[in-house]
Amino acid sequence: MSKPTVTAVPKRAYAAQSTTTPLAPLTISRRDPLPDDVVIEILYCGVCHSDLHQARGEWGNTVYPCVPGHEIVGRVTRVGPKVVKFKEGDLAAVGCMVDSCRTCPSCQRGLEQYCENGCTLTYNGADKHLGGMTYGGYSESVTVDQAYVLRVPANLDLAATAPLLCAGITTYSPLRHWKVGPGQKVGIVGIGGLGHMGVKFAHALGAHTVVLTTSPGKVADAVRLGADEVIISTDPEQMKKHARSFDFILDTVSAVHDINALFNLLKLDATLTQVGVPASPLGVAVFNLILPRRNFAGSGIGGIAETQEMLDFCSEHNIVSDIELIRIQQINEAYERLLKSDVRYRFVIDMASLKE
Amino acid sequence: MSKPTVTAVPKRAYAAQSTTTPLAPLTISRRDPLPDDVVIEILYCGVCHSDLHQARGEWGNTVYPCVPGHEIVGRVTRVGPKVVKFKEGDLAAVGCMVDSCRTCPSCQRGLEQYCENGCTLTYNGADKHLGGMTYGGYSESVTVDQAYVLRVPANLDLAATAPLLCAGITTYSPLRHWKVGPGQKVGIVGIGGLGHMGVKFAHALGAHTVVLTTSPGKVADAVRLGADEVIISTDPEQMKKHARSFDFILDTVSAVHDINALFNLLKLDATLTQVGVPASPLGVAVFNLILPRRNFAGSGIGGIAETQEMLDFCSEHNIVSDIELIRIQQINEAYERLLKSDVRYRFVIDMASLKE
Repeated sequence: MSKPTVTAVPKRAYAAQSTTTPLAPLTISRRDPLPDDVVIEILYCGVCHSDLHQARGEWGNTVYPCVPGHEIVGRVTRVGPKVVKFKEGDLAAVGCMVDSCRTCPSCQRGLEQYCENGCTLTYNGADKHLGGMTYGGYSESVTVDQAYVLRVPANLDLAATAPLLCAGITTYSPLRHWKVGPGQKVGIVGIGGLGHMGVKFAHALGAHTVVLTTSPGKVADAVRLGADEVIISTDPEQMKKHARSFDFILDTVSAVHDINALFNLLKLDATLTQVGVPASPLGVAVFNLILPRRNFAGSGIGGIAETQEMLDFCSEHNIVSDIELIRIQQINEAYERLLKSDVRYRFVIDMASLKE
Repeated sequence: MSKPTVTAVPKRAYAAQSTTTPLAPLTISRRDPLPDDVVIEILYCGVCHSDLHQARGEWGNTVYPCVPGHEIVGRVTRVGPKVVKFKEGDLAAVGCMVDSCRTCPSCQRGLEQYCENGCTLTYNGADKHLGGMTYGGYSESVTVDQAYVLRVPANLDLAATAPLLCAGITTYSPLRHWKVGPGQKVGIVGIGGLGHMGVKFAHALGAHTVVLTTSPGKVADAVRLGADEVIISTDPEQMKKHARSFDFILDTVSAVHDINALFNLLKLDATLTQVGVPASPLGVAVFNLILPRRNFAGSGIGGIAETQEMLDFCSEHNIVSDIELIRIQQINEAYERLLKSDVRYRFVIDMASLKE
């Protein structure tokens, strides 16, 4: 079979050109649809802290220009001839991945995020079709293989749905993998973009949901989001009272913090799963994992099937993110506010602003 | 029911009197048997690195005088009237615990080592009967409730059996808990008192057993102990070749070391379990636990039932420790050699020497 010809068309986007330049308009190329491709007009794109890290080159691997954005929702404008999952006019979404090897054991199990050959990230990944790097959702459209495109439930607010594609699935996946449900006491550490979704999901899954926060100012909000209890984690008395009582803890904090104090809250054989990625290693006092026997795990986003399951779960339970809608022209200001955790709880870009 | 009267009798022992004094002879008290008690004449006692830590007050909680020793084998000399598990003349063994609350969920599940009210350690634990602290196996006899005494298989070398009571169960328990067996690739990190037992057990359980060591001088010994492969963990090429290939890793190293390089060897959803206890926290780069999803766990000794299972497994597979037999008068010299890892792989004290 000969490789189909790829046609590139110019599209508007916002990009960083170096580690220090603010994001600014740029014309990028998107491919015309190949047989399995879906072309999506992007309506909303969430702003993840990863966008900022990548745009500013803080992970050391950024290829410029860099167009961030992996919380994408929009409307299908064209489909390739083999596309069966979508038709023109459908709502559609794209998360952190746009492809993977599809053949390794992880891909075969529907865990494309752990593809042994490395999945293709939505931005700053190697673009197999046009060469160079993939460009993310801070743009007017994106072309993605149907196998990596999600269906968007019709009953959800579309702008507030965008963050589900990263913040949502990143918290939903570990709660499901470690089988959180009724009769369990589950902790969510940190109330930010990830944490506020974790609270909503743990509550909806029927767990006794306990928020751990360093901010007394967030207690009321935690309760509003679904917390049954709130612990101020800087108070040793409160922490002691809850020692060895948790069935599962989801830690969403991406700053370096005292993980050992959190281990002490776990029951025998219980797990703390980290989804925030601190820039420096966390100091683990091994004794806290030994007496009693406990687990410390990590978890990264979720597979495509599980992301769809999460969106359907959100439809059923009427769950979306708490967002602040911005225009693309406000993105650099939004990054500065993100650094100060000055958002409750996720910025979402109204991509109509790109046409202004 | 009135509490039975406790009679204390003097017994010979070796004890540390302060953080800096060498171990020396001391007369201690042992209780005459209560209804459920077994009195054991100690024949052999293994020397665990914990003995040294505790004798020298390195954990900050030592009450002096301190009589170490929790790898005890000997012969029953007296039993209380309610004792059914043992009779005079039987071989018997005692490990790290001599009692626990018996009522908490952990005790009820046979996981007395994780007793929620704290198990009574064989030495430096609160002695419920005589007051003061419990005294360990560097002594001529010990009196222990039958529920915490193990049966010793007749076919094993008795001196070489002693280290099974700590080094043995500490490595056996996690290999069983994480279901190590045929078809699995299992790593044992470090070849010392714990590690050499881990290799023997992983091999006997049918796993493809891989030793990870920093010492090229230990390769031949690792193979002799049962390793199918040996990786020199300081060689990045070898480590890279084995990336993402292990089903389970048991880390027995108690020095601070690069745990992240070891995480990279684990498959998706595989676990690294730490049984060595480094004095300082280990720096965990969380990303290595996230991509792919992996577990970092701890494990402490084993319960009484599992310790008996381990001894029976050793009987069936003819497994004991590799030991160097010493007299009690050599204990201070042995501690110095222990600090230099100058023992292959466990010192055991011939307690007959106490009568010299």
